Amino acid sequence: MIDFEPPLVGCVLSNRDYSFDILRESGECVINIPTVELAEKVVGCGNTSGREVDKFTAFGLTPVAAALVRAPLIDECYASLECKVADDRMVEQYGFFILRVVKAWVDPQRAHPRTIHHLGKGAFMIAGETIRLPSKMK
Amino acid sequence: MIDFEPPLVGCVLSNRDYSFDILRESGECVINIPTVELAEKVVGCGNTSGREVDKFTAFGLTPVAAALVRAPLIDECYASLECKVADDRMVEQYGFFILRVVKAWVDPQRAHPRTIHHLGKGAFMIAGETIRLPSKMK
Repeated sequence: MIDFEPPLVGCVLSNRDYSFDILRESGECVINIPTVELAEKVVGCGNTSGREVDKFTAFGLTPVAAALVRAPLIDECYASLECKVADDRMVEQYGFFILRVVKAWVDPQRAHPRTIHHLGKGAFMIAGETIRLPSKMK
Repeated sequence: MIDFEPPLVGCVLSNRDYSFDILRESGECVINIPTVELAEKVVGCGNTSGREVDKFTAFGLTPVAAALVRAPLIDECYASLECKVADDRMVEQYGFFILRVVKAWVDPQRAHPRTIHHLGKGAFMIAGETIRLPSKMK
């Protein structure tokens, strides 16, 4: 998260990845946020390239049309962020895209999504419990 | 995380924060990583300013000299990253610093640190269990 208004997200992609090329060419993407139920498919997607494999077919995922960008949502994911590239000045040096979230989708029926957070080399931390403390922080 | 070699971390600070001013002036900082045991102190630190309060004294935290930067480690934290500003081109517009980690400290006796992840407005997700899947990913 880079900013709230407008909502900006920073994202690093390797310039060896197919996603890097199509994000740079199209200026658009969807960030789909999976939960632990999808962990094996996430690793499958991470270990293959869209240059050679149709990942929707290979991993049994369902594309859904987005509202404001051409890239698809993944129906099985908990949340999806439709994004447009807002700043590409750091792309060449770091593969770092600043994205503006133009539409956000979430499954309101899932109160406690067990999102997964890659620690490296196939290890994922599963989101645990949430605590709430009195705070003035945004 | 922006890159592995050299280890680069991206960090957004509000330009209203005292930390913003001293990071920009000194070019150095320590990112101290707390666990849930410190959550109330974290919120206390987030709701006060170093311009008015000595947070080490106010919240009972212990400064420890760093090896390569002038900013201190916090002894009570699980891990600490000594950092130097590597790229400040995005600071003016986004408050976004790219930091090079020059030294990293971790408490090796804590196998399962319950780190906390701010969801906004005083809500924190506590790191849950870790799963490991066969993967070629870094």
